[in-house]
Amino acid sequence: MRLSRFYLPLLKETPSEAQIASHRLMLRAGMIRQQGAGIYAWLPLGFLVLKKIEQIVREEQDRAGAVEMLMPTIQPADLWRESGRYDAYGKEMLRITDRSDREMLFGPTNEEMITEIFRAGVRSYKDLPKMLYHIQWKFRDEIRPRFGVMRGREFLMKDTYSFDIDEAEARRSYNKMFVAYLRTFARMGLKSIPMRADTGPIGGDLSHEFIVLAETGESAVFCDERLIDMEVPDKETDFDGDLQPVFDQFTSLYAATDEMHNNEDFEKRVPSENRMSARGIEIGHIFYFGTKYSLPMKASVAGADGKDSPVHMGSYGVGVSRLLGAIIEAFHDDDGCKWPMSVAPFHVGVINLKSGDDACDKACATLYDALREAGVDVLYDDTGGRAGEKFARMDLIGLPYQVVVGPRGLKSGNVEIKRRSDGEREEVSVDSAVHFIAERVSDALKVE
Amino acid sequence: MRLSRFYLPLLKETPSEAQIASHRLMLRAGMIRQQGAGIYAWLPLGFLVLKKIEQIVREEQDRAGAVEMLMPTIQPADLWRESGRYDAYGKEMLRITDRSDREMLFGPTNEEMITEIFRAGVRSYKDLPKMLYHIQWKFRDEIRPRFGVMRGREFLMKDTYSFDIDEAEARRSYNKMFVAYLRTFARMGLKSIPMRADTGPIGGDLSHEFIVLAETGESAVFCDERLIDMEVPDKETDFDGDLQPVFDQFTSLYAATDEMHNNEDFEKRVPSENRMSARGIEIGHIFYFGTKYSLPMKASVAGADGKDSPVHMGSYGVGVSRLLGAIIEAFHDDDGCKWPMSVAPFHVGVINLKSGDDACDKACATLYDALREAGVDVLYDDTGGRAGEKFARMDLIGLPYQVVVGPRGLKSGNVEIKRRSDGEREEVSVDSAVHFIAERVSDALKVE
Repeated sequence: MRLSRFYLPLLKETPSEAQIASHRLMLRAGMIRQQGAGIYAWLPLGFLVLKKIEQIVREEQDRAGAVEMLMPTIQPADLWRESGRYDAYGKEMLRITDRSDREMLFGPTNEEMITEIFRAGVRSYKDLPKMLYHIQWKFRDEIRPRFGVMRGREFLMKDTYSFDIDEAEARRSYNKMFVAYLRTFARMGLKSIPMRADTGPIGGDLSHEFIVLAETGESAVFCDERLIDMEVPDKETDFDGDLQPVFDQFTSLYAATDEMHNNEDFEKRVPSENRMSARGIEIGHIFYFGTKYSLPMKASVAGADGKDSPVHMGSYGVGVSRLLGAIIEAFHDDDGCKWPMSVAPFHVGVINLKSGDDACDKACATLYDALREAGVDVLYDDTGGRAGEKFARMDLIGLPYQVVVGPRGLKSGNVEIKRRSDGEREEVSVDSAVHFIAERVSDALKVE
Repeated sequence: MRLSRFYLPLLKETPSEAQIASHRLMLRAGMIRQQGAGIYAWLPLGFLVLKKIEQIVREEQDRAGAVEMLMPTIQPADLWRESGRYDAYGKEMLRITDRSDREMLFGPTNEEMITEIFRAGVRSYKDLPKMLYHIQWKFRDEIRPRFGVMRGREFLMKDTYSFDIDEAEARRSYNKMFVAYLRTFARMGLKSIPMRADTGPIGGDLSHEFIVLAETGESAVFCDERLIDMEVPDKETDFDGDLQPVFDQFTSLYAATDEMHNNEDFEKRVPSENRMSARGIEIGHIFYFGTKYSLPMKASVAGADGKDSPVHMGSYGVGVSRLLGAIIEAFHDDDGCKWPMSVAPFHVGVINLKSGDDACDKACATLYDALREAGVDVLYDDTGGRAGEKFARMDLIGLPYQVVVGPRGLKSGNVEIKRRSDGEREEVSVDSAVHFIAERVSDALKVE
């Protein structure tokens, strides 16, 4: 992408309403623009990151055996009356009346709708297990939307729903999502810790939140710090196999959110040198809730014995748009974002220090074409303006690598390559620059 | 994808509420499920087609130089007061009040919001032209939603917005979209005809609808039938070059929708043997409306002379979800869908005629793996059930090719390959089946 064609409206001033780094940086770097309280437009730069995060989430859902579909944003109120949640949900639900006075709502989650879809199509235990998911915009009418996309009102969520014949099978589905989530967040460079959590309005009796530690997190959390370095299962994991050992390993050490925390327990189970009390951001939440919805909504299947029984269900959410904030909180400095390669809007930025200079223009155009040819996502800063402005902009948007092309370097046939994560610089010949970058990009993108 | 894992709830009965083939087939083939009047859930099979259509739309937008972003579904009412459309839009606008009594709406289109975003970030003619697009769910509270996804209330639309310094430049943007649309629809196997159209509530004085002819279309159209076979520009088209000749060619012959039709003109310009009066489905609509929004909303840029003037804008919509219906209307028979390769949910279906039989299971599993390895999207029917049921299901969902694996054929080392478009069958050896399919798939997917 040539910057001259792109739309990248940077903010010069730090917006005063933004209290945390990710919110500030997303506004400053022209990734989002607020359209209402807790409602954002995703400008091209932010959109690219959102798409990459979404794609990683999708790939790991598919790997775990979940099947993608898409439910609408608007739901009929009657569906929620069947489960009893229409009245229970409270003011966070955005209620809507259409021109024919039908009561509807903007879906905050989809347990009811997926149960309706399931019961219409599945009759027999032979069709189980099933796992369905979608990635769709949700709306929760938060009383105090804040922290940018971290607690917005309109937000993108991936939600998966599992259907099993009994609790033992449902736990196998739960374990699949448990492992899929560990992998999903690890691929974004995040160390997530599954913590016993309260089930809240979703209900049920087994639930884990996936938390990344961050000073700006909204949740107080308590855990054994040895959890941070536990190794995440690799891509050869057999999701049809027994994942209970992984679940057992990751839940063997103490980890709980505020609501579930028990200090006595904490001190008994965790040696004092490993005790960690910190703040965290919830990026995923999984639930097993058995027949909470299938029973009132009559979603039953015939068992091997011919008798009908309600299916056992679970639901599994990832905050896709929130993840942008969480990733920036984990990877940034005073100058801007420092994207991990897997979610970077572009892998590399090419900076033309002297647009209009023949040699610079030519070298940049050649590099740009060759990098794209090699499968690298490139942003080419082909605009005018001072070098300092260009450097600052590239640091702010935080692409993993920068290739700086200037008249002085070109005279000796060189360009400078800067790695954003640690600022390390290296002179390389123009001819080897493409290979240099392409190799590092493909190494970083390798899925383990 | 193994059918045993997929979710494909077929309907045995033809739903009585569905009046046209595409609506009937989408319900019967388990592609959609209605959740309210004009509101549908996209089941896995329908979702796969929707994603492929969306991706073609995206690729052609990118090729034409438009930049993708994403605006929220919920918009503040005040934005629409700035343009004067909040009161003018009428009952089709879904109006919403949140918990703090703020007036909002579910966006039916995005002219106001994109104008707000543009004016916040662009100050100078040097930043022009700009073309921005998004693919997002819209809501129009139709009084009579009907024909399934063809006229739904919640629907997926791609909308692009162009910003130029003056009318001459704006026409260049208009031409880019004109050509991009011809290419987009052609890649889906559709012959679209651009027709002079009324500008309706969007406003402006230049507008074309892109129409595919179909008996079940909602619009009456009149055109010179020689338009149908005009050659669409290929992928080497230079979108930065002069596209006026293409525009001139495609608008040289008479073509108008009902509202714009002038019979005298029609008979004067079209030789009687080429006169065509038919019905059509609107799948795209493009507008040049100048300063209709930029003037009241104060979206101005400084020109080369330093003087501010309002930008000239256009907007360009494609009905992404509606396209599924339009494509089925164009490609189906009594047995089901006949997807063009480019939008098929899977390229090929492998039918195991005797699940449980060792030789059949093994041959199918090998084929399935090898086809996927070759980059082919495969649905493997690994379920039990009668052969007749499997054939009927595969015909109904309409994948371009079927590979039928049965014990009799395997004895002589063969499988049968059926082409869905014309029913042609061929026996090929098990060993050559993958190459046979992969070659045809890749030929069909080649972008011209």
